[in-house]
Amino acid sequence: LSDGAPAVRNVRLDLAYDGTAFTGWQVQPGRRTVQGTLEAALSRLQGGEPVRLRAAGRTDAGVHARGQVADGLVRSRLEDAGLARALACILPTDVAVLRVRTVPHSFHSRRDARAKTYAYRLDLTAHGDPFLARFAWHHPWPLDHERLAAALARLPGRRDWSGFAGAASTAASHVRCLSEARHEVVGGAEARFEFRADGFLNHMVRNLVGTLVEIASGRMPPERLDRILAEGDRRLAGPTAPARGLCLERVAYGDDVEAPPVRH
Amino acid sequence: LSDGAPAVRNVRLDLAYDGTAFTGWQVQPGRRTVQGTLEAALSRLQGGEPVRLRAAGRTDAGVHARGQVADGLVRSRLEDAGLARALACILPTDVAVLRVRTVPHSFHSRRDARAKTYAYRLDLTAHGDPFLARFAWHHPWPLDHERLAAALARLPGRRDWSGFAGAASTAASHVRCLSEARHEVVGGAEARFEFRADGFLNHMVRNLVGTLVEIASGRMPPERLDRILAEGDRRLAGPTAPARGLCLERVAYGDDVEAPPVRH
Repeated sequence: LSDGAPAVRNVRLDLAYDGTAFTGWQVQPGRRTVQGTLEAALSRLQGGEPVRLRAAGRTDAGVHARGQVADGLVRSRLEDAGLARALACILPTDVAVLRVRTVPHSFHSRRDARAKTYAYRLDLTAHGDPFLARFAWHHPWPLDHERLAAALARLPGRRDWSGFAGAASTAASHVRCLSEARHEVVGGAEARFEFRADGFLNHMVRNLVGTLVEIASGRMPPERLDRILAEGDRRLAGPTAPARGLCLERVAYGDDVEAPPVRH
Repeated sequence: LSDGAPAVRNVRLDLAYDGTAFTGWQVQPGRRTVQGTLEAALSRLQGGEPVRLRAAGRTDAGVHARGQVADGLVRSRLEDAGLARALACILPTDVAVLRVRTVPHSFHSRRDARAKTYAYRLDLTAHGDPFLARFAWHHPWPLDHERLAAALARLPGRRDWSGFAGAASTAASHVRCLSEARHEVVGGAEARFEFRADGFLNHMVRNLVGTLVEIASGRMPPERLDRILAEGDRRLAGPTAPARGLCLERVAYGDDVEAPPVRH
């Protein structure tokens, strides 16, 4: 390389954020978004030249992430670790870049994602735990956990998920392969769902959780689940669970992008 | 009892709160405080008649609690569980009444406390964990955990803690008995201190943590600790650690107040 401007490279960013104070991932004029906050920070590190990021999952307003992945072209003299340190200094405390890796230009954080895992937390305490208020749906009413487990066991498979797609869904196909759907009770006062699939529709996890909670509360017959799956009618399903309980935990890629970062 | 107004009774409230958005426990005009928020909620439940609470520990602005204890005289037809349920409905999500117990009028949450336990959390990640931003001091620099353990081991005992008392301390005596001082590294990226004593001075835990971190960072010789304890000179100690890492975990009382609640 010459002594001139540094070369453009594609970087993969592994991200965590508390989504409470963001209007979701995607840039919107006049709103504080995760994408906008990160792009502004990266742009500042390359003398104001704009940066455009794309992410594995465009999380909604209020949704959190522990393992979001984004990528974008940057032009910086800082190597990956230096870029991570510089970002740690200038980003606000509710978003963090866990790792920076230079990846091939062919890497595409959304298209190359093989699977995503979302968690959803319920706060089951009667009083509402102040330390979970931003991160869980407070649901102080009794749940039948056996009924919940039975309903979850019927979900996995390659199916059309239209009955659980949000009205805003613009996906050409609603067929997705759900490989895992489970829940556990943590410490007696918290329920934690986990869903893994090759992709999720808009609001899909929140609509699933809203329906599962209706079933586990005895307000909806367990058989309804099969009807929703068979008929694909959103009106048969339960309400959309609140955004605050949802967290994008992990995004899985093929082995190629797990290789050691390119050295310069 | 007659059919008239319900009798006045003394209730013990076990409390948890995220202190981020409170100006501490104690009522201050024009400020949002934990005491003021709870008193307003209780007052609303007895037709506007004022309630005055006292707490085991008057936590500072930004300090959290998982096991604060308060008590006060209330006049309500609701029995203890009903009072707890009513409070859960009207309190904001950042403060919770974990339990309500009717106690003898002689019970005094502060005077009767035999011991208090405070925890202090450090976020050791390079990037800063967004989920700990409200609850830990972000300290991404190396700490010598053996040196830290050695310093902590020298602390317990009945001593004069003037060297660690905040300037605002109005305590008649600075002698307190510290029975436990320890730390552990949780998951490799978080350090958690725990201190137990029969009482704490204003800013005492935060001044201890600030000094311990100076020692563990190599910025202060370990011998300085003995000098601070011997000379009681606050200027020899380290800076006051930020409030957000501190949490009042537990208050211990004699067995008498652990007895079953009085029935009416």
